[in-house]
Amino acid sequence: MSFTYRRQYRGPIKAVVFDMAGTVIDYGSQAPAASFVELFKKRNIEITTAQARKPMGLHKRDHIREILAMTEVDHQWRKKRGGAPTEEDLETMYREFVPIQVACLPMHGTLIPGAAKIYETLHARNVKIGVTTGYTKIMLDIALEYAGKQHFIPDAAFCADDVPRGRPAPWMIYKCLEQLKIYPPEAVVKVGDTIPDIEEGLNAGVWTVGVAKTGNMIGLSVQETAKLHPEELDTRLRKAYNGLYRSGAHFVVDGISDLIRVVNKVESRLAAGEKP
Amino acid sequence: MSFTYRRQYRGPIKAVVFDMAGTVIDYGSQAPAASFVELFKKRNIEITTAQARKPMGLHKRDHIREILAMTEVDHQWRKKRGGAPTEEDLETMYREFVPIQVACLPMHGTLIPGAAKIYETLHARNVKIGVTTGYTKIMLDIALEYAGKQHFIPDAAFCADDVPRGRPAPWMIYKCLEQLKIYPPEAVVKVGDTIPDIEEGLNAGVWTVGVAKTGNMIGLSVQETAKLHPEELDTRLRKAYNGLYRSGAHFVVDGISDLIRVVNKVESRLAAGEKP
Amino acid sequence: MSFTYRRQYRGPIKAVVFDMAGTVIDYGSQAPAASFVELFKKRNIEITTAQARKPMGLHKRDHIREILAMTEVDHQWRKKRGGAPTEEDLETMYREFVPIQVACLPMHGTLIPGAAKIYETLHARNVKIGVTTGYTKIMLDIALEYAGKQHFIPDAAFCADDVPRGRPAPWMIYKCLEQLKIYPPEAVVKVGDTIPDIEEGLNAGVWTVGVAKTGNMIGLSVQETAKLHPEELDTRLRKAYNGLYRSGAHFVVDGISDLIRVVNKVESRLAAGEKP
Amino acid sequence: MSFTYRRQYRGPIKAVVFDMAGTVIDYGSQAPAASFVELFKKRNIEITTAQARKPMGLHKRDHIREILAMTEVDHQWRKKRGGAPTEEDLETMYREFVPIQVACLPMHGTLIPGAAKIYETLHARNVKIGVTTGYTKIMLDIALEYAGKQHFIPDAAFCADDVPRGRPAPWMIYKCLEQLKIYPPEAVVKVGDTIPDIEEGLNAGVWTVGVAKTGNMIGLSVQETAKLHPEELDTRLRKAYNGLYRSGAHFVVDGISDLIRVVNKVESRLAAGEKP
Amino acid sequence: MSFTYRRQYRGPIKAVVFDMAGTVIDYGSQAPAASFVELFKKRNIEITTAQARKPMGLHKRDHIREILAMTEVDHQWRKKRGGAPTEEDLETMYREFVPIQVACLPMHGTLIPGAAKIYETLHARNVKIGVTTGYTKIMLDIALEYAGKQHFIPDAAFCADDVPRGRPAPWMIYKCLEQLKIYPPEAVVKVGDTIPDIEEGLNAGVWTVGVAKTGNMIGLSVQETAKLHPEELDTRLRKAYNGLYRSGAHFVVDGISDLIRVVNKVESRLAAGEKP
Amino acid sequence: MSFTYRRQYRGPIKAVVFDMAGTVIDYGSQAPAASFVELFKKRNIEITTAQARKPMGLHKRDHIREILAMTEVDHQWRKKRGGAPTEEDLETMYREFVPIQVACLPMHGTLIPGAAKIYETLHARNVKIGVTTGYTKIMLDIALEYAGKQHFIPDAAFCADDVPRGRPAPWMIYKCLEQLKIYPPEAVVKVGDTIPDIEEGLNAGVWTVGVAKTGNMIGLSVQETAKLHPEELDTRLRKAYNGLYRSGAHFVVDGISDLIRVVNKVESRLAAGEKP
Repeated sequence: MSFTYRRQYRGPIKAVVFDMAGTVIDYGSQAPAASFVELFKKRNIEITTAQARKPMGLHKRDHIREILAMTEVDHQWRKKRGGAPTEEDLETMYREFVPIQVACLPMHGTLIPGAAKIYETLHARNVKIGVTTGYTKIMLDIALEYAGKQHFIPDAAFCADDVPRGRPAPWMIYKCLEQLKIYPPEAVVKVGDTIPDIEEGLNAGVWTVGVAKTGNMIGLSVQETAKLHPEELDTRLRKAYNGLYRSGAHFVVDGISDLIRVVNKVESRLAAGEKP
Repeated sequence: MSFTYRRQYRGPIKAVVFDMAGTVIDYGSQAPAASFVELFKKRNIEITTAQARKPMGLHKRDHIREILAMTEVDHQWRKKRGGAPTEEDLETMYREFVPIQVACLPMHGTLIPGAAKIYETLHARNVKIGVTTGYTKIMLDIALEYAGKQHFIPDAAFCADDVPRGRPAPWMIYKCLEQLKIYPPEAVVKVGDTIPDIEEGLNAGVWTVGVAKTGNMIGLSVQETAKLHPEELDTRLRKAYNGLYRSGAHFVVDGISDLIRVVNKVESRLAAGEKP
Repeated sequence: MSFTYRRQYRGPIKAVVFDMAGTVIDYGSQAPAASFVELFKKRNIEITTAQARKPMGLHKRDHIREILAMTEVDHQWRKKRGGAPTEEDLETMYREFVPIQVACLPMHGTLIPGAAKIYETLHARNVKIGVTTGYTKIMLDIALEYAGKQHFIPDAAFCADDVPRGRPAPWMIYKCLEQLKIYPPEAVVKVGDTIPDIEEGLNAGVWTVGVAKTGNMIGLSVQETAKLHPEELDTRLRKAYNGLYRSGAHFVVDGISDLIRVVNKVESRLAAGEKP
Repeated sequence: MSFTYRRQYRGPIKAVVFDMAGTVIDYGSQAPAASFVELFKKRNIEITTAQARKPMGLHKRDHIREILAMTEVDHQWRKKRGGAPTEEDLETMYREFVPIQVACLPMHGTLIPGAAKIYETLHARNVKIGVTTGYTKIMLDIALEYAGKQHFIPDAAFCADDVPRGRPAPWMIYKCLEQLKIYPPEAVVKVGDTIPDIEEGLNAGVWTVGVAKTGNMIGLSVQETAKLHPEELDTRLRKAYNGLYRSGAHFVVDGISDLIRVVNKVESRLAAGEKP
Repeated sequence: MSFTYRRQYRGPIKAVVFDMAGTVIDYGSQAPAASFVELFKKRNIEITTAQARKPMGLHKRDHIREILAMTEVDHQWRKKRGGAPTEEDLETMYREFVPIQVACLPMHGTLIPGAAKIYETLHARNVKIGVTTGYTKIMLDIALEYAGKQHFIPDAAFCADDVPRGRPAPWMIYKCLEQLKIYPPEAVVKVGDTIPDIEEGLNAGVWTVGVAKTGNMIGLSVQETAKLHPEELDTRLRKAYNGLYRSGAHFVVDGISDLIRVVNKVESRLAAGEKP
Repeated sequence: MSFTYRRQYRGPIKAVVFDMAGTVIDYGSQAPAASFVELFKKRNIEITTAQARKPMGLHKRDHIREILAMTEVDHQWRKKRGGAPTEEDLETMYREFVPIQVACLPMHGTLIPGAAKIYETLHARNVKIGVTTGYTKIMLDIALEYAGKQHFIPDAAFCADDVPRGRPAPWMIYKCLEQLKIYPPEAVVKVGDTIPDIEEGLNAGVWTVGVAKTGNMIGLSVQETAKLHPEELDTRLRKAYNGLYRSGAHFVVDGISDLIRVVNKVESRLAAGEKP
């Protein structure tokens, strides 16, 4: 009775789960950032894009709550509206937020360069494609419609509305895996552009890949990125990589066009007996 | 951009997920074994208890399918019923099976020695209790009712009916964790008396503990076990331990009364940076 | 077909294999050193005790060969005997050596302090005792007779004559394990006072413990050791520890009286899943 | 005295130790299975080929004992022969068994495809070839004669008669290594088609490779295998792989024609500092 | 030539290197924060304490540079002073800064609770005490004078002036170790209250311990901390622990009074063969 | 507060630190060996080259002290000079030694084959070159001058005079890294031909490479090496490799012409998350 046997998965990757905005579509994750700024403007509260981006990745309701909790925002609110924001305010704002963002989604539905190619390559390798997002159901449906027209058609997709709590909880990934009939978690990769994305993956026990350049960490459109002074871009990228690595990402890349290289590396590490 | 950061969970165990029959109630996992024998007898097919026990841990429908696929059973069936069993046969038998087992559950609802104590100790340590089972919803409800009367009241419980596929798929554990709001998987222990139990746990990325003496691996009631020649018991136990260890169980114990010692060991290994 | 299972021995130590001279009997490994000096003196060749001790642990024939190969000894030989030593010289010297050492064994048969106690403790823990030695059969028999009178009675004992090649080859340990019916090698500890002892153990895949103070590395009797200036003893001990550690010894201790502490540590490391 | 030094073998593989029937010769391990069926038939006991194959890999005397201990066989025996089988029965049957199998060996002496090529490649790489087997001396000699005619000529070969206990004890491997003068165990690979083969290797501390398709795990001749429905073959292969992996095999392959690829992988893992 | 030997330090901790402000003296790291606020006020620039604290741990010149680079500060500067700050401005401000901070040091020279006790305990265990700091030479001398009066007298102390670049470069630690004659780095622990402290330690290859409560991460005096609502303190502590852990700290504690427990844990991990 | 984050350097090698004599220049490390023999001859003491070479790698003053401490040398000294050597003798000899060695440096200043190529390749890969040596300042300057003329021009160079203690202390490497502004130690490789070289590297926490053939371990010039019987060379090389590996060298090569291959291997191991 003295021998134990340690099971090790040494097979291929079976599924990749993607975040949407900033990872698959909407270079720079523009849609949500702009919508939050507009939402607060309506209440006469000025927030910077940086402030709007800080909690990105979370459920949109949690996102608004986090902005309201920022010292400077709380300050403005109290001064201009005579009192702290209430749970009711939060609920109203969340209801208002949805149509604002829905309205701007069409302008931000283009696939990020490389996404269509990655989709094709993974499918050819018999890897299932999942999607998890902080979006609500309505937004997710629109995003999927746009992505689909550009030939990115996931096998499963879940949003924050489908689970009791959004990221960093792993429930959306679990739902994807159940629908895709894929296990063990060692055979799965999560890809996303925010720290909550990475944590969602780690909390599900899967491999995690951060996307540093095309999403919320830089927060600029293709055009804006191109205009940036190379040194400035380098500084920002370094910070983005560092932020994602420090949250525990197994890999960080500029964008999903670098993903196949990473999937290959993960498979080598699996073959060598490593776990995520 | 050259540093990676490997996240390691070094905290306490937050949840334990138990199998029911043979682990928490029904010493020797008598109820299902007897019911399968009876089910086949009704069709004039003789199966041994050993045959009835072989697929234990699976969804009951899959369980019947596995018995039908055994060479000797298939043989009898064809001889006596003139043709191979069909999908329809399977479905009919499954429908018949449920009331047979439901009827015998009351005789097998006693908690296995130590279960109440474990429940109390874990709760006092703020560890959540989950249950997953190959039972159907009706059976699970009855089992929970009996367990509840004996003061074992899980915080979450899911059965094979709640998910698209039973063990060894990890979906029931995922559902438990979502309801209990518990992550990461490193903070969770699965306990069960069959190999599919261990695989369910490994496939969810959690720690796994096999129960060798009180469940299906020995398959004897308290009284039958007591009557066994010590040498014979030793031989059977050795085989049971070995079978569970070879499926990858991190720990194997006689019964759940030894569980706290194991939870403490798991916490030491977590503190040392180990993963399941 | 994607899962592998890594077997790990997590049980207790089942056997300890001891070297004799300098480890169990003959504090300072005096008998062989003195005999080699005398052997060469008979041929009018002066060798120092340090030179005599250098190849200790090997088969006695190999030991003589190694001394003959030392530059200074080769030098003397050619000068005094007009020509290099031949294979015939070696054979003759080996035949002469045996009775010389046999004659002096009685003066060096006392157990090293702690040996009887260790023997008793290990046996009480149901650990088998093996012996391997560079001695010839006649010497081993005498050594065992002396040890036996002092209540150290190994369950198996093999010498260089029993195998095609002595240390650092692992064959003597393999013979012990076969006779003791003990496996796997992870359950075994080899203890000895020379570097070939450690290598013999490593080459058999077992745990190895070096004995720094009571054997050939210091090479002094109890009385001589006691007379040594503490600082000098410290310097020599440091060198002895270092030499044994650098050959890959898992543990080094002053003498076998420290062995139980080491066996306990080995068992902790086995329980943690380590291999030798 | 604070530094330890962990020795790691980073060199090439120096020896491969093969099982014979089902691994090197006798595709499907037909000879022994047929002989056991015949042996029992002579006593009017019907056993299935599956039952005959179950204990394969063990010493043939142990093999008969294991069959006699099977419930159904024990049953038949008592019914037909009025009493349990005795040690004398076992001994008589073992004596009878040898000529039965010897008689059928000539029909099963063909090398398994790839064996001659592997032999040649390994020898060209200066890797020694050993053989261990559950056969008796007479059978081994016949098997070696047949293999030799087909240019597979091992450098060392030992059978169950040469050691106090057959597999899973490691003594036959130890004898091979002593004769081949090969150590450490990290430089050795054991290849075989049964679980006792894998355990023999693990118990000797060497690398282990299971052969899933050409031996006892499938138990079919080349022709029978070719006739199998691909899906059925796939199911059986999966089970064979799984069984060998769960016993702790480091690698499992279809047959020895895949061995060079495995030896290369082992050498990479050695170069990376891994132990078996 | 096929064996490598991996050296592992398994001895005790030989030296602990402490940061000063926020770690050993000046609970809440008040002195530098207040001084930066005052320095900018003199130029009519308002900075928050949070902004003043952000770059803490760096060389004071680098610290001023980092504040000047903050968007809001840069904004104010340009508006009020008509142009971006120049290298000359930086130099002038650095020169002004020194006397400001020197002037306020006396109010912040009290040892943090537990510091004297730790000092005593470490010395009694024969562990050397080093100090590294972002302070200039003058400030360090004053800080050491105050600490000395309270019986905390390091064996070596170096500041940012002593090396070509301050933290996160490891040069100050290297200077300490050279003066203390201590190696290897595995035998050393660095303790500090900022992320640059942790990185300095990691970049020197030593063990690192973050101090979450008594230093810059919370940034409150003993009295202010005591007044904080327990829930608020808990939230801030969680963030402080998380920030330090994510920079790679091996351990995080509330304050140095918990250090002995950590040193003991490090020694256990060294004994188990771990490296920092 | 339950997650820790383990930082791992996965980037390229940033600096290589070389020993000079026997590694970069002076094949066989002839200059120092000859000088020590001459130094003792002046005092009428005969020492062999082997004795002169034993302490190689240390500070030259320590080197003389070690020779004086050898039993045979001590013996001669007492006999010929009537009394043990004093600290004053040591100091006088050290003063005399410097000009002796300086005088013979010009004959031994040729680069070892491959050195110029390595220098070029490393620089092209943007790897900084450091030098540490047991030489005094005057000797180092001469050695650098000769090396420079042959296009080997290190970016930093330190000698035993620059630090309170020479090898095996790591201070010279630390000084190099500070001047080169290179960290962490995982990004650095130390190369040298003696055991103190390897220990210096291990004590600094960097990767270590031993040079077996071109330096002090063989101790022969290019011509002498070429004349050696291949078998004799093989025996000596084996001993040299073994000696360097046992001191903990991560890699051993014949000479620096094999270095690039090693740097590539180190980078693979870094990429895989290994530490030195």
